Amino acid sequence: MANSDTLDRPATKSKGGAMTKTNEGRFFEDYTVGQVIRHAVPRTVSGGERALYHALYPARHALYSSDLFAQSCGLPSAPIDDLAAFHVVFGKTVPDVSLNAVANLGYAEGRWVTPVWPGDTLRSESEVIGLKQNSNGKTGVVWVRTRGLNQHDELVMEYVRWVMVRKRDADAAAPETVVPELKPVLAVGDLSIPAGLDFTGYDFELAGEPHRWGDYEIGEKIDHVDGVTVEEAEHMMATRLWQNTAKVHFDATFRPDGQRLIYGGHVISMARALSFNGLANAQMIVGLNAGAHANPCFSGTTVRAWSEVLDKAKTEAPGVGAVRLRLVATSAGGSMELKGDDGKYLPHVLLDLDYWALMPV
Amino acid sequence: MANSDTLDRPATKSKGGAMTKTNEGRFFEDYTVGQVIRHAVPRTVSGGERALYHALYPARHALYSSDLFAQSCGLPSAPIDDLAAFHVVFGKTVPDVSLNAVANLGYAEGRWVTPVWPGDTLRSESEVIGLKQNSNGKTGVVWVRTRGLNQHDELVMEYVRWVMVRKRDADAAAPETVVPELKPVLAVGDLSIPAGLDFTGYDFELAGEPHRWGDYEIGEKIDHVDGVTVEEAEHMMATRLWQNTAKVHFDATFRPDGQRLIYGGHVISMARALSFNGLANAQMIVGLNAGAHANPCFSGTTVRAWSEVLDKAKTEAPGVGAVRLRLVATSAGGSMELKGDDGKYLPHVLLDLDYWALMPV
Amino acid sequence: MANSDTLDRPATKSKGGAMTKTNEGRFFEDYTVGQVIRHAVPRTVSGGERALYHALYPARHALYSSDLFAQSCGLPSAPIDDLAAFHVVFGKTVPDVSLNAVANLGYAEGRWVTPVWPGDTLRSESEVIGLKQNSNGKTGVVWVRTRGLNQHDELVMEYVRWVMVRKRDADAAAPETVVPELKPVLAVGDLSIPAGLDFTGYDFELAGEPHRWGDYEIGEKIDHVDGVTVEEAEHMMATRLWQNTAKVHFDATFRPDGQRLIYGGHVISMARALSFNGLANAQMIVGLNAGAHANPCFSGTTVRAWSEVLDKAKTEAPGVGAVRLRLVATSAGGSMELKGDDGKYLPHVLLDLDYWALMPV
Repeated sequence: MANSDTLDRPATKSKGGAMTKTNEGRFFEDYTVGQVIRHAVPRTVSGGERALYHALYPARHALYSSDLFAQSCGLPSAPIDDLAAFHVVFGKTVPDVSLNAVANLGYAEGRWVTPVWPGDTLRSESEVIGLKQNSNGKTGVVWVRTRGLNQHDELVMEYVRWVMVRKRDADAAAPETVVPELKPVLAVGDLSIPAGLDFTGYDFELAGEPHRWGDYEIGEKIDHVDGVTVEEAEHMMATRLWQNTAKVHFDATFRPDGQRLIYGGHVISMARALSFNGLANAQMIVGLNAGAHANPCFSGTTVRAWSEVLDKAKTEAPGVGAVRLRLVATSAGGSMELKGDDGKYLPHVLLDLDYWALMPV
Repeated sequence: MANSDTLDRPATKSKGGAMTKTNEGRFFEDYTVGQVIRHAVPRTVSGGERALYHALYPARHALYSSDLFAQSCGLPSAPIDDLAAFHVVFGKTVPDVSLNAVANLGYAEGRWVTPVWPGDTLRSESEVIGLKQNSNGKTGVVWVRTRGLNQHDELVMEYVRWVMVRKRDADAAAPETVVPELKPVLAVGDLSIPAGLDFTGYDFELAGEPHRWGDYEIGEKIDHVDGVTVEEAEHMMATRLWQNTAKVHFDATFRPDGQRLIYGGHVISMARALSFNGLANAQMIVGLNAGAHANPCFSGTTVRAWSEVLDKAKTEAPGVGAVRLRLVATSAGGSMELKGDDGKYLPHVLLDLDYWALMPV
Repeated sequence: MANSDTLDRPATKSKGGAMTKTNEGRFFEDYTVGQVIRHAVPRTVSGGERALYHALYPARHALYSSDLFAQSCGLPSAPIDDLAAFHVVFGKTVPDVSLNAVANLGYAEGRWVTPVWPGDTLRSESEVIGLKQNSNGKTGVVWVRTRGLNQHDELVMEYVRWVMVRKRDADAAAPETVVPELKPVLAVGDLSIPAGLDFTGYDFELAGEPHRWGDYEIGEKIDHVDGVTVEEAEHMMATRLWQNTAKVHFDATFRPDGQRLIYGGHVISMARALSFNGLANAQMIVGLNAGAHANPCFSGTTVRAWSEVLDKAKTEAPGVGAVRLRLVATSAGGSMELKGDDGKYLPHVLLDLDYWALMPV
């Protein structure tokens, strides 16, 4: 057990020079490649988190909704949504990685390995795998590989994230640059299929749509139609649920424009839930290749979504296929375009996520 | 297990003529009398749904609040609220019955048969029992009898609902008219009393009011006094909790006036919870005779409620009486009047519900 | 079991003189010293309440978040937050004590004795321990000692509260004045340490901060930095969750200014959760010495918090120290001042709470 002597939290000083007890977060200089951060505040989840996930998002994927349906697919019971697992794991990294972050730059090599069941306790650890100071000397990019573990010390999920972080002192020397080599796309062989998963007896009627893995074509685009106008109370409750307490989501006095930036993960979950309409059988998220929070989202926005099939592959598990999907959240419906001629995301694009999901063959 | 070949979902075509994967819902022509629709997305409930029901509504009926109180009334533990069971069952019908509905016309023959316990999984099935095209040829009325079943294939509850549905093609021929004969009021003998229910040792002090079945007179009206001003985030979370994703409740761009129509069931539950004040001992809802969502409800409305005792009867169960109640939700307090001289609901009336509840004798 | 004949609820008459069934609450004349009120609507809690508490407040104290962490501290599993227990117990007293209250004057002698676990059922009882009519004859102060009990009839927590209550009839004679002697501060010996609690193996890294009991100095002030802008839907859901249905929190037509007063307990929990930043290891709240809801709080306020260490002491339990803390919630950050030259709370002070918490030595 760690005691207070072994903690690597940087000493913080108040304005007057005395030691304060509050967390000022890590600045760019506080990271070293190879460092492992054991994030705080482990979290036990229950049917309460599952109910709340269903209240916050129009979540209808049957595997997460019904114990019986999950059992008919070879699982012991309905797991907590894969994205809920992500949010819990991510939320624990925020006090250590995000407090002085300027921007969330990307994700890679996200793999879901062990489902999360009611009663499980999750904790997070992150290894610093890259550092690169920016030429302006005021910020730098930090790459971390975060692992979420359950009470059996099993890997629940992992992902790489990189963020632009402020420096405490612009004159501090730059660390040696280390830029990790990351797979832009996970191969199907990199994916982990939950033990026992079997879609050979999959009930398409109870699932809500008849579309099989074989019915989707690479390049196909699906407009998920429905929109949800998001509210302040919802996104704050959703973000707090994962113990993500980043000020910008909660404090209307933080930004000069008085707006509370919606946690990007809230947009991910909203879009994923909306994607049920056309992708009801993309049940389990098992890989995350990339993600860009293209434009900020605020309360009052009507979020819509569309998807594109990027790739398909079979897996070893009975009746289980894998689809690689682009999930796009927008603040306006219409054409399914992502970027302008300048190569930048169009202003109505909120999210561009590249992930693998499992679907009955 | 159903496979995709046997689904009866109508083929949907995109504007360009290609098959789309999203659900356009059923139009009037897609229904046939006798058809059974096995609705999708079964749902397992837990203490999470019970906690959320208590957060969303000022629900204080003791039988649903306390395992001990429920046990003192002969039940194994506190069931999930009867209206929560209704919302779950109803929510599953929405993608199949409501997507192209113009108006919700009425309810009848609603019976609650088996309580819902944390851990239960519910699914819904509907049989089409009536069809009548409107003279304008653009819409028609569809009657469905919906049954909610649990994981033991026991009937949890059932009800008849009829909706006005758009036609896909105004020129399509009208089906043979079938209008079901429905009981305007269930007789006490039609009601199902949960097994083991026994009010002989009912604790009136812990229940919150001293009024017994014998203290209520037919014709008596009760003003429940309290008002709750409803908010967008709440009604959306409440509606989503039941996996009811009808656009009009969530998308502020859907209606020309930019408002999100509040799910009628949210008003039902709010009014029922408010009715605790004066009807604290009307514990279990066992029958639904009729219901009209008289006027739409939107965020910012202060909902109030009053009730009228329509009938009373004893039951076979020890100490258990039945009361037939009219529950009225309003957007303004004051006189307990329902309709104007023209026979239409007064503008401040939101809901007129006719139901049977069980009360200690 | 109580039957309706033995209830002591005062007879209520409608304006027309007939008996109404709704609860008009107790007026000052309805209280007698020594009277015991057995409050209604017991409540079973589950993981659902724990999840909701984490969604409503940025709660990160590890003992309540993680079963494993709680077990590492000698408890069977993670209890429900001590303040959640308080809100449940308090909420049940509202229909009997608060309906005609003009002001909440103070708290004293609050002791938490038995943690609350998912599955527990709580009920509340209050003994009237003091009465004092005000000289204007229109109101009087009522002191109650409220006890929360679980399903084993174990004392979960207790506290004394006094409120100013309206008189029904200004001409009614004043009762004999009884003003209870209350301890302004509980001694450490008055506190109850949960059975089995053991902080000798406390994991500071997983807890989130390295600060031990020995690192805090009496007189030290800690600014918790973060602010949360509160919303209508959240505070209403939070208050309803505890079955506290006092109109002023829910009905925007109740106050002339159209505002819904936020339940003071919502501010307590928000401030306590914010205090994690600097007091992450003040894990268990075991005593409440005093509390003032200094100024009202409304939606749109950005709540911040600071704390002051008032006292410290060791306890009998292994590795467990006690800290006495002042917790202040404000509607604006800045100087950590409480009162102006006139001895009144400054306008930006929302809450001043004096409590004991347990911390690893």
